[in-house]
Amino acid sequence: MSLNEFSLIKRYFADIGDTRITTKLSQGDDAAVIEVPAGMQAVMSMDTLINGVHFPVNTSAADIAYKSLAVNLSDLAAMAATPAWFLLSLSLPDNNESWLHEFSSSLKQAAETFQIELVGGDTCRGPLSITIQITGLVQKNRYVTRSGARPGDKILVSGLLGGAALGLAHAQKRLKLPNSIAGICLGALNRPRPRIELVDFLSRYASAAIDLSDGLIGDLAHILKLSEVGAIVNQASLPVPDWIVENNAYQYALSGGDDYEICLTLPRHHWPRVVQWNQQHPDCRLSEIGEISESGYTLIQAKQTTDLYDWQGYQHFD
Amino acid sequence: MSLNEFSLIKRYFADIGDTRITTKLSQGDDAAVIEVPAGMQAVMSMDTLINGVHFPVNTSAADIAYKSLAVNLSDLAAMAATPAWFLLSLSLPDNNESWLHEFSSSLKQAAETFQIELVGGDTCRGPLSITIQITGLVQKNRYVTRSGARPGDKILVSGLLGGAALGLAHAQKRLKLPNSIAGICLGALNRPRPRIELVDFLSRYASAAIDLSDGLIGDLAHILKLSEVGAIVNQASLPVPDWIVENNAYQYALSGGDDYEICLTLPRHHWPRVVQWNQQHPDCRLSEIGEISESGYTLIQAKQTTDLYDWQGYQHFD
Repeated sequence: MSLNEFSLIKRYFADIGDTRITTKLSQGDDAAVIEVPAGMQAVMSMDTLINGVHFPVNTSAADIAYKSLAVNLSDLAAMAATPAWFLLSLSLPDNNESWLHEFSSSLKQAAETFQIELVGGDTCRGPLSITIQITGLVQKNRYVTRSGARPGDKILVSGLLGGAALGLAHAQKRLKLPNSIAGICLGALNRPRPRIELVDFLSRYASAAIDLSDGLIGDLAHILKLSEVGAIVNQASLPVPDWIVENNAYQYALSGGDDYEICLTLPRHHWPRVVQWNQQHPDCRLSEIGEISESGYTLIQAKQTTDLYDWQGYQHFD
Repeated sequence: MSLNEFSLIKRYFADIGDTRITTKLSQGDDAAVIEVPAGMQAVMSMDTLINGVHFPVNTSAADIAYKSLAVNLSDLAAMAATPAWFLLSLSLPDNNESWLHEFSSSLKQAAETFQIELVGGDTCRGPLSITIQITGLVQKNRYVTRSGARPGDKILVSGLLGGAALGLAHAQKRLKLPNSIAGICLGALNRPRPRIELVDFLSRYASAAIDLSDGLIGDLAHILKLSEVGAIVNQASLPVPDWIVENNAYQYALSGGDDYEICLTLPRHHWPRVVQWNQQHPDCRLSEIGEISESGYTLIQAKQTTDLYDWQGYQHFD
């Protein structure tokens, strides 16, 4: 770490997020020293966002900072882990002070919202990219994986699907959304809300979970593969913006990425918990979209049934 | 994570390093789940290496993989932490299979050499860059920081200084080394040896330590600043390749980076431990290069004394 880098870190990144964990040392030394509380396990993930790949090149520094943390928090939510701390590696083409100010202010705000602390990392000169390594905590063996789905389980998703993909298509001028919906979809793209509020629900009731980063059909396939089961998905049950229904544009919800909602499977006897959850959490409603089966992967649409293993929107990811 | 990425990870990164920690889940899920043993603390660091910035653009995939892990291991060594696990984020311009094969084989070999396990991460399309987040373990509060140096402590460094900077200058054709020394210096540049063997010694005897990534004078300044002390460094005592002595080219050892040796401070009464160490570890000799003082930062050279706070080779890093 050069001194230049040292002063940059001190100025912009010295005080981000609150301390609920035992941090013995944080920034300014070769490494952070952290104590994991007895009886807890560390859940660790890492995601990189690259300019022009994971966000459009004209995305604001504030949105980039927020999204970089949000997509990592979403991985923790999917595992039913509570956010604890993160490390940041920031590669920047130049020391643009106003960009750095906007980036670090937004990161600080997001870290406070989701109660997570920045404990270390790296900054360097290079093409704009942001890597965050995030750690959450779970009580011993209370995490949720992709491998626990069983035939008969209901398949649920949180929130709305397809908004982020619509927002991206609008931003890239591949389609023109009405103003009334464009703002909502751009918000879904740039400010995805990691579903940390679902952590306790998932830990108690879900048999499997994954966060939707690459699109429902591809991501649900990971659960099916690791759980060695099949699924039937009802297109008409997908929670989507009205525009998708009106324009029969379900591909945005089925294979569009970046929603960062949670897809979970739930043993049927826990259904009353979902009803109760939806009454208490109108901003994070869970919608039943299908059912886990012994084998196969089928999408039921209004006029046809599609084998998803052969489906183009799925093959796209191979 | 796309399925494409999923198969890439499965093919190249599924089995790197051995398991001595309790890994409940590793790759293939949203996150890794890890148990930190009771009585231990986690020491965490993260470093990014960018093509053309941290290594010359024609560096081999094997050398890039080795060095990416080595520079992170070096941070653990400086904290007196034993390597435990790491996450890898790899940004690649294309899926070059032979490059990936060479990179992952070298990473696997390095992970086995230093007994550390790859537990997760991310791969994506973008300019070539490698981010590793590494975690080591220490017995509770037995880590070493930059802030413990006291006046009267001896200043020591491991190995030889300046070889990597000479190797870089040779690779960039800024100077021409004799063949007999070029190979050694290119080895120092591309295959720095993280001083994991020093972990136990540091934990027992060192008052402060840092790894030398940016050059001795700048890195030692971090210890001085955090310990609120000064130092006197004797240029003639620096352990350097003969070429540096013969050509009076000490700037490569003083401000050249990338050596990844350890600079430590040692209370004087532990000196016999150094003598014993050097007898037992001829490949990782410790050399006394100066002494911690109350204040000031002075370099004693053959014909003059330089105030390092004003020194150009130090200012370079500001």
